[in-house]
Amino acid sequence: MESRRNDSYLDRYAARAQGMVPSEIRALFAVASRPEVVSLAGGMPYVSALPLDLVGDMAARLMSTRGADALQYMSAQGDPGLREQICEVMALEGIQASGDDIVVTVGSQQALDLVTRLFVDPGDVVLAEAPTYVGALGTFAAFQAEVVHVPLDAAGLVPEALRETLARLKTQGRTPKFLYTVPNFQNPAGVTLAVRRRAEILGICQTYDVLLVEDNAYGLLGFDSEPLRVLRADDAERVIYLGTFSKTIAPGLRVGWALAPPAIRAKLVLAAESAILSHSALTQLLVREYLATQPWREQIKNFQELYRERRDAMLDSLEALMPAGCTWNRPGGGFYVWLTLPEGLDSKAMAPRAIANRVAYVPGTGFFADGSGRDALRLSYCFPAPERIREGVRRLAATVEHEITMLGTFGTTGTQASTGVDRPGSDLT
Amino acid sequence: MESRRNDSYLDRYAARAQGMVPSEIRALFAVASRPEVVSLAGGMPYVSALPLDLVGDMAARLMSTRGADALQYMSAQGDPGLREQICEVMALEGIQASGDDIVVTVGSQQALDLVTRLFVDPGDVVLAEAPTYVGALGTFAAFQAEVVHVPLDAAGLVPEALRETLARLKTQGRTPKFLYTVPNFQNPAGVTLAVRRRAEILGICQTYDVLLVEDNAYGLLGFDSEPLRVLRADDAERVIYLGTFSKTIAPGLRVGWALAPPAIRAKLVLAAESAILSHSALTQLLVREYLATQPWREQIKNFQELYRERRDAMLDSLEALMPAGCTWNRPGGGFYVWLTLPEGLDSKAMAPRAIANRVAYVPGTGFFADGSGRDALRLSYCFPAPERIREGVRRLAATVEHEITMLGTFGTTGTQASTGVDRPGSDLT
Repeated sequence: MESRRNDSYLDRYAARAQGMVPSEIRALFAVASRPEVVSLAGGMPYVSALPLDLVGDMAARLMSTRGADALQYMSAQGDPGLREQICEVMALEGIQASGDDIVVTVGSQQALDLVTRLFVDPGDVVLAEAPTYVGALGTFAAFQAEVVHVPLDAAGLVPEALRETLARLKTQGRTPKFLYTVPNFQNPAGVTLAVRRRAEILGICQTYDVLLVEDNAYGLLGFDSEPLRVLRADDAERVIYLGTFSKTIAPGLRVGWALAPPAIRAKLVLAAESAILSHSALTQLLVREYLATQPWREQIKNFQELYRERRDAMLDSLEALMPAGCTWNRPGGGFYVWLTLPEGLDSKAMAPRAIANRVAYVPGTGFFADGSGRDALRLSYCFPAPERIREGVRRLAATVEHEITMLGTFGTTGTQASTGVDRPGSDLT
Repeated sequence: MESRRNDSYLDRYAARAQGMVPSEIRALFAVASRPEVVSLAGGMPYVSALPLDLVGDMAARLMSTRGADALQYMSAQGDPGLREQICEVMALEGIQASGDDIVVTVGSQQALDLVTRLFVDPGDVVLAEAPTYVGALGTFAAFQAEVVHVPLDAAGLVPEALRETLARLKTQGRTPKFLYTVPNFQNPAGVTLAVRRRAEILGICQTYDVLLVEDNAYGLLGFDSEPLRVLRADDAERVIYLGTFSKTIAPGLRVGWALAPPAIRAKLVLAAESAILSHSALTQLLVREYLATQPWREQIKNFQELYRERRDAMLDSLEALMPAGCTWNRPGGGFYVWLTLPEGLDSKAMAPRAIANRVAYVPGTGFFADGSGRDALRLSYCFPAPERIREGVRRLAATVEHEITMLGTFGTTGTQASTGVDRPGSDLT
C-alpha cells in the first residue's frame, strides 16, 4: 500500500493499473521464506530430483554444437522441432495436434496472458472455478475482466452449476469470453474433473457457444492412473489448451505453450511478438535436447513417486494431527491439498499467527476474485521433504488448536486481517 | 490476411486485437531467409563472435553449482545480484541507480510492453520519433495507443518539433502518456541525439510534464567515442530507462530490464508477474555469471570493432555503387543505415523485386504508424560478413537502377504493393 500513498504517477496510469495491486499477504511471505519456517505455501517443483549434472553437460554440448542458434533471436511462434515434441507429450493425454498450432510461451502463465489479452475487453466476463489458480486471477484483473466463479466439488467443476451460471448470464445479455478450467489435480483445490463430466462440460459450452481455456499444468503428475484424456482431445475448435514444462521438467526454463485453433494461434503469435519479440532460444533448445536425449517419461515417473510420497506424508499427518472440524481432500496427483477450517476460523487472520508458529500456507482468499475463501487454505506438499511436511502439519495443527481455544474462550480468534483480495507472489504458484 | 477471412472467432476478440494484424511483408521475409538472399533486413547481432565454448562451460558450471536455483521459479523482479550488476553496466552511461529500482524483463521488448500496459488506455497518445522502432509500434498498437510522430534529423529528435507537437496537443486538450525515444544509434534511422539537445529535450518534457521512455539498446555500441551520457542520468523521476543484453551479449538469453522510479517499478513488477510469473532463472544466472567471470567490457569492444568494420563495408559500397539521388546517413554506432530513395521510387513496392535480385531490406513504411516511409528503407550491417554486405549493396544498387529506368521509361516502377501498415516479424528487430 505504501507505493500507492507515495505514488506521484497515480493519475497517469491506465485504468487497468487499478487491477495491479500488491497482495496484503506478500509481506508475510517474505517472512515465510526464512529457513526456520516450514513453507506449505509455495508451488515450487522439487527440481533437485533432476539429473542436474546431465542437464549441465547438455547445455555445454548445445552451446558447442548449436551455440549461435541458441544465443540468437528465434521466431515468435517458437522452435519448430520443440513444437513437434510438444505434440508427442500431449499425445499422452489423447491430443492429436500439429506443431503448427502451437505457440511456445514464457511458461503457461504467458499463454494465459496472451489469451486474455486477445479476448478480454474491460468488463468482459470470464468464468473460472471457485477456487481457481491465483495467477489466473492476476491476469484477469490486469485486463479488467469480471470473474464469475463456478463451484467445483470433489469431482471437479459442477456441470449443473455451469449450466445455471450460463443461463443466468444469458438472461442478463452477457456472454462469457471463455471458461478457464484446470481439470486435472486442480490448483488450489487438488480435485480432478471426473471422466463422466468431461463430455458434459464440453456439451454445455457448445450449447452456450463458450470457448474453454484448459490449463493442464499437472496432468502428467497423477499418482494412480494413466494420464486422463483432456478436454482438448475431444474438441479442437472450442478448446485452447495451455501446457508447460514447469512441473514435468523445470520452471526456471520458462517453457510453456498454447495449442489453439489456427486463426487464434495466428493472433497469439502476433500478441507474443508485441509482448516479448521471441522467447529464449537457449531454453527452448535445452528443452528440445532434454526431450530428445533424456528418458523424460521415466523422469516424470520419478516425480510422480516423489510427490506421491510427500502427499502421503501430508495426508497421514493431517489425519493424525488436525483437530476435529477440519476437512480436506485426497488429491490423486499434482501438488495441493485444500483444507477447510472449523466453523468460525479465518485462514487469512490466522496466517500471521501460523507464521509466528513457523509454518506457512496460502489463505483461501487468494483463490477467489470476490474475497471469499476465509474458511479454507491451500497446503502444498511438492517442495519440502516428508519429514518437514510432518513438522509443518504439526505446527499447523497446533495453530488451529489454539485458534479454536481462543474462539471458544473469547468468541473471536483475535484481530482480523483487513479485507480485500489477496494475490500471493510468483513464489507461490 | 488469410487468417482474417477464415476466422470464425472474429466477433469474440477484444477490441485491441484489431491492432494485431499480420504484416503484409512477412511472407516476403520468409523468402528472404533463403541462403542465396543477402539479408540487410534483420537486426540480428553477430553472436558467433562470442566465446561459445566458454559460455557452454559456464552453463555447465552453473548447473553443477547452482542448478536447483537456476531451474526454479524466481522473483518477478529478477535476480538481485544481476540487478546490481546491471547498475554497473548503466554506470558507463552516467546512471546512478539502485538494483531495487530495476525489473528484469524478457528483453527490453517486454519492458516496453509492461510500461505500455501500465500507462496506456485505448486512444491515449504516445509520442515517438519518425521513424521509430518497429517493435514499439507493435506494442503501442496492441494497447490501442495513438502514435503521434515527432520528426528527427541528423542530430536526433528535433526539440522544436517536440515543443510544437506538445503545444498542439495541449490546445487539443490531450496529454501524451509518454515520449518514446531511442537516443543512441537509433533503430531504424541510425542517428544519435546530439549532446546539446539532451538537456533541452528533458526541459521540454518537464515543461509539459511528460514522461520519457528511453530505449537504449545500442548505447554501448558506439564506434568513435566513450558511451554518451543518457537522459536518465539527469532525470531519475521523469525517465523510464529500458536496457538489454541482447546486443552486448546475446538476444537468445532474452535478458533486458526497466529502470524506473520506485512507484512505477512496483507496478511494473506486478505487471510482470501477471504476464509471465517470473523470468527464466537460468538465463538470468547465466548473464550474472558471464558478467562476473568474463571480460565483458573487452567483449563489447570486440563487438564495436566488428560492427565498425561492417558499417564501413556498407558505407563504402553505398558510396561506390548507389545511383545518384540516393542519400543515407553515417551511423556512429549500432546496426543501421537509413537510405532515402530517389524521388518517385517506392521502397515497399520495390521489396519483392529486390528479393528477386537476392537482397532484402526493410521498407521504411514499417517504422511509421501512419503509412509514410515509402521513400526510404532500413539497411542492417550487423549480421552479414563484410563481403556479403558488399554483394548485398551491389544487388540493391542494381535493383534501384532498374527501378529508376522503369520510372523513366514508363512513368511507374510497376505494380504497387497494397497499402497499409507494415510490421515485420521478430526476426527483423
